[in-house]
Amino acid sequence: MSQGRPRSIEEFRVGERATARRAFGEEDVGRFAELSGDFNELHIDEVAAGRSRFGGRIVHGMLTASLVSRLLGMELPGRGTIYLQQSLRFVAPVRIGDELEAAVEVTAIDVAKRRMTLSTTVRRVDGENVLTGEALVMVEGER
Amino acid sequence: MSQGRPRSIEEFRVGERATARRAFGEEDVGRFAELSGDFNELHIDEVAAGRSRFGGRIVHGMLTASLVSRLLGMELPGRGTIYLQQSLRFVAPVRIGDELEAAVEVTAIDVAKRRMTLSTTVRRVDGENVLTGEALVMVEGER
Repeated sequence: MSQGRPRSIEEFRVGERATARRAFGEEDVGRFAELSGDFNELHIDEVAAGRSRFGGRIVHGMLTASLVSRLLGMELPGRGTIYLQQSLRFVAPVRIGDELEAAVEVTAIDVAKRRMTLSTTVRRVDGENVLTGEALVMVEGER
Repeated sequence: MSQGRPRSIEEFRVGERATARRAFGEEDVGRFAELSGDFNELHIDEVAAGRSRFGGRIVHGMLTASLVSRLLGMELPGRGTIYLQQSLRFVAPVRIGDELEAAVEVTAIDVAKRRMTLSTTVRRVDGENVLTGEALVMVEGER
């Protein structure tokens, strides 16, 4: 899969933005449970999750956060990204099948250190934010 | 899968700790790439990753972080955990097959709000930290 050439830190601009859409289905949640070992009943057990405050199964927070990883690794900055830090606030539950839109936006650039800060948000397409936070990345640029 | 009964916030103690060991293989990294859509060459392309500063393929940061999700959701606090916030610092690369130990430890408890702060760390079993950070969770307790 081509991701284009790596960009050098000088080529990015504050305000630059990338987005991606995705819904996680039952199978995705099952696969993430297997991969992580997180079989918490809120994700896996429809009956127990139905009795919870959420009224049904919810998607793992870290699976929702993987959309941010995808945008950083594939689009902005894309090739040459080195992931340094991420903060995550899980501000609303994500239900199985919820249509999500993730967005990353450059908020600060440190050319000397080749580092960028990006705001990282996932919202339901119908409006509400489900995840907010910030990423710090380094950009390798051309080799 | 039984996780025992949910514990109420009064039952936790600062200093309480849980750990889990895991290595991520090539198949795990491939599965996480499929699930997240993050096919960055550092994770997927042995040739390109070999030319990078890392000298070979590395595990997605968010996949390493899933070990923290597993410990919170399954062990401490376990059942009744509601994930509110997580900070992640990716302080060293994780290579495919590296044996990891994740640890979470209660650092503060707010009984009135039913919230706990935990330090969250993943290290290579041979010693070096690869991920550090902090989690904020709410505990539902018994219903």
